[in-house]
Amino acid sequence: MRRREFLAGLAAFGAVPELPEFGGIARRHPPQVNGDRLNRHLAELSAFGKSPGGTNRVAYSEADLVGRKYAAELMRAAGLDPRIDAIGNIVGRREGREPSLPSILIGSHIDSVTNGGNYDGDVGSMGAIEIAQTLAESMVMLRHSLEVVIFQNEEGGTVGSKLMVQPPTDSDLDRVMRSGISVRDGIGRIGGSLAGLAAARRKAGDFLCYLELHIEQGGILDRTGVNIGIVEGIVGLRWFEVTFTGFANHAGTTPMNQRKDAMLAAAKFTVAVNQAVRSVPGRQVATVGRLTVSPGTVNIVPGEVTLTVDLRDLKAETLVRFTKRFEALGKQIAAETGTTFAMRATSTNEPAPTDPRLRRRIAQSAESLGLTTLLMPSGAGHDAQEIARIAPIGMIFVPSVGGVSHSPNELTRPGDITNGANVLLQTVLMLDRSGL
Amino acid sequence: MRRREFLAGLAAFGAVPELPEFGGIARRHPPQVNGDRLNRHLAELSAFGKSPGGTNRVAYSEADLVGRKYAAELMRAAGLDPRIDAIGNIVGRREGREPSLPSILIGSHIDSVTNGGNYDGDVGSMGAIEIAQTLAESMVMLRHSLEVVIFQNEEGGTVGSKLMVQPPTDSDLDRVMRSGISVRDGIGRIGGSLAGLAAARRKAGDFLCYLELHIEQGGILDRTGVNIGIVEGIVGLRWFEVTFTGFANHAGTTPMNQRKDAMLAAAKFTVAVNQAVRSVPGRQVATVGRLTVSPGTVNIVPGEVTLTVDLRDLKAETLVRFTKRFEALGKQIAAETGTTFAMRATSTNEPAPTDPRLRRRIAQSAESLGLTTLLMPSGAGHDAQEIARIAPIGMIFVPSVGGVSHSPNELTRPGDITNGANVLLQTVLMLDRSGL
Repeated sequence: MRRREFLAGLAAFGAVPELPEFGGIARRHPPQVNGDRLNRHLAELSAFGKSPGGTNRVAYSEADLVGRKYAAELMRAAGLDPRIDAIGNIVGRREGREPSLPSILIGSHIDSVTNGGNYDGDVGSMGAIEIAQTLAESMVMLRHSLEVVIFQNEEGGTVGSKLMVQPPTDSDLDRVMRSGISVRDGIGRIGGSLAGLAAARRKAGDFLCYLELHIEQGGILDRTGVNIGIVEGIVGLRWFEVTFTGFANHAGTTPMNQRKDAMLAAAKFTVAVNQAVRSVPGRQVATVGRLTVSPGTVNIVPGEVTLTVDLRDLKAETLVRFTKRFEALGKQIAAETGTTFAMRATSTNEPAPTDPRLRRRIAQSAESLGLTTLLMPSGAGHDAQEIARIAPIGMIFVPSVGGVSHSPNELTRPGDITNGANVLLQTVLMLDRSGL
Repeated sequence: MRRREFLAGLAAFGAVPELPEFGGIARRHPPQVNGDRLNRHLAELSAFGKSPGGTNRVAYSEADLVGRKYAAELMRAAGLDPRIDAIGNIVGRREGREPSLPSILIGSHIDSVTNGGNYDGDVGSMGAIEIAQTLAESMVMLRHSLEVVIFQNEEGGTVGSKLMVQPPTDSDLDRVMRSGISVRDGIGRIGGSLAGLAAARRKAGDFLCYLELHIEQGGILDRTGVNIGIVEGIVGLRWFEVTFTGFANHAGTTPMNQRKDAMLAAAKFTVAVNQAVRSVPGRQVATVGRLTVSPGTVNIVPGEVTLTVDLRDLKAETLVRFTKRFEALGKQIAAETGTTFAMRATSTNEPAPTDPRLRRRIAQSAESLGLTTLLMPSGAGHDAQEIARIAPIGMIFVPSVGGVSHSPNELTRPGDITNGANVLLQTVLMLDRSGL
C-alpha cells in the first residue's frame, strides 16, 4: 500500500503543468480548477429557464429537466458516471483507492426560485463537477471516494437532501411546487421512484463529510472585500403566521376611541418585532414579509390582518427566547387595541452548525491560496443543513455583488467563483490526505 | 289668498282622526306617518337583491332596476307622479299652493354596497315617500311644492346628486361600478339620457332646502340612547395612496441594520398616522384600510408597500393640517428606514355643513314629538353633500344598532325609523309654514 500511496502522492502534486501565474518558476503545486471552463459551464446552464423576468428553473419544470440533463452530461465528461437515485438526486462517483473509507460528498442544486438568478446553487453544482474534472485531468486518485451530488428541489424546501436522510410524510409529498407539480409526481418526472426512497437513504458513517460551495446571498463579503466566507452554521428558522382580529367598521362614522382596528394592531406588532430583535446584541433577524388586510377597503377600519414573521438565528435558545417575546408583544398589543391575537408556527428548522474541523481545513486551504476569509453565519437555508444529521458539514461562501440574491440581478464575479472552487478543491485534497 | 291659507291650515291640523295613543282626548294635532306601512315598505324593498351574503342592490344591477321600479310604484300610490330625469334619478312632485315658491326636496337612495344591509339609503327613501303619502291621506296641501327624489348610485360616489348640480367629466362617466357597468352605460340602463344631462341639472334657488333622513351608520345614538341625531355637517374627506419603496432582499441573509424594509416603514407610518389624529382634541378620523406588500413573501424583506389613508373632518383646515402632518411623518419615517416615500390624493370631498336654521327646525320638530336629540357630524358621505352646493341642507339621523353599517347586520329598529320619519314630516310642515 505504501508504494501505491507514494504514486498517488506523485500524481496529486506532480501531474499538473507549471502555470504561468506562478511566475514560470518550476515548483510543484497542487492542481487548480479551470476557472474559464467553470464560468463557461455556469453561463451555459443559465440558458435553461432564461426568461425576461429572470431565471425560471423551478423544480420539476421543463427547464429543470433540461438543466439536469446538461449537468449529468458534464458529470459524465468529468468521469463521474452519474446516476439518478430514487429520490431524484443526480449522484456521480469517483472511486477512491481505499474502498473501506467513507466518501467525501460535495455538491449543491440547480433548481431556481421564480424569477431567480444564475448563481444560487449553480455555483456549488458546477464547482463540484469542475473539481471532479480537475482531479480526472490531473490524474489525482484520492484515498476516499468522491461523490458529487446535484440535489433535486432545494428551493422548494431542501427536498432532495431531506429525503436523503429521512422518510417523507404524506404531506411532504403532497406539497405542490411553483411548477404546479407535487413532490410526489415530481420525483417520478425527474427519474426517481417513490418505491425506492428508503433504499436511497444514506446514513451516518456513509460520508466523511459534506462540503458545499455557495454564493453568500448577503452583502457582507462584498462590502468588506473578503474573498471567502467560512460558514459557522446555517441559522435555525421559525416561521409564524400571526392574526389580529378586531372589528370591521365604517372609517367615517367610527370615532378613533371606538375602534378595534386590526391594521393598527398589526402595524404596532411589526414595529415591535423589529425593535425587539434589534434591542439586544446578536445576528438574529426577524422579518414581516407578507401581510393581508380584510376587508382591505380604503374606507373600512380593518377587521382582520394576517401577517408572517420569519425569525432566524444560529442559536436555538435565541429562537425560543424571541418566540416567547413575540407572543408577549402580540398579547400586549391586542389588549391595547381591543383586538385578539393568535400566532402559530408554520415552519421550523433547527440551527445546523458546521464542523469546527472542517472550518479549520477551509481556512487553511484559503490561506494556502492567498485568499482572505471571514467566519459568518448562513442566514439562508441550504441542503447542508439536512446532511448535517448524518455527516459533518462545511460550507464555503463566495461574494454576492450588492448582497442581491433570488433575483435576476444576482451576480458573483468569475474570479470569486474560481477562488471558491479552488478552496473547495484544496479542502477536499487536504481532508483526503489528513482526515478531518 | 288669506282665505285659502286659512283653509289649508284647517286641512293641515284638522284632517287627521284622533289617535288612540293620544289617550282619546279630543285635540287637534299634526299628521303623523304610518309607521307600520313605512316599515312594511322597507321589508318589501329588502327582497330586491337579497343574497346569503347580504343585500346586493349595487347601482345598475338587475336588483337595482327592480328596486327602482318598486319605489316608483310606491311614489305613484302616494300621488307623486314619478318621472325619471335624464340623470336617472327618480323624482316625484306634489304641487304646492304657491307655484312661485321654491320646492322642498326630500329623499335619499336605494342602491346598496356589495353585501350591504337594508337601511342605508332605504330609510330616507321610503321615509320621504311615506311623508308624501301621509300628506296626501291627510289632505294637507303645502304652500311649497314637495319633491321626493331617489338619487341613482349613491354608493358609487353620490353620482345622481352630483350630476344634479354639476356636469360630469369623461372619467366620471367611464367609472365602472361593482355591477360591472359604467356610469355612462348605467344612465341609459335606468332610463336616463346622456343628451339630457345639462337640462336635468338644478340650480341655486330651485329648492328651499334639501332634507335627508338617514341611519347614523355609527354607534353614538345607539350607545347614548338618544332618539334623533341632528347632523352638524358632512365631513370632508381626503383619500391618499402612500407608497414606501425600499429594497427587496433575503430575509435570512440581510442583517437588520442593512435593510431598506418598506413594510417596517409602512407599519411605522400606520402607527404614526393613528397617533397624530388622536394627539389633538377633535373628531377627526384617519384610517389605513388597504395595504399591499411586494413581493409579499414570508422570507423576503419587502421592497415596496402601498397603503391607503382615509382622513375626514368637518373642518377644511383640519384636513389641510393633517395632510401636511402625514407628509412630514412619511418623509421622516422614510429617512429613518432608508426608504422613499410618495403620497398622492386619490379623492377629495370638501366638508358640507348643514344649515343652522334647518338644524333648529329639526330640533323643534323632534322636541314637539317628545324625542331627544344630539348634534353630531356625519362621518359618512351622503347625497346631501352634493345638493349643499345649490341649497341649504339638513340631515336627520336615526340610531344604527351597534353602529354597524355596510353589512348584512345593519339594523335600525322600526320605532326609530318611524320617529325619524315623523321628525322629517314635522320639519317639512314647519318649514312650509314658517320658512327657514
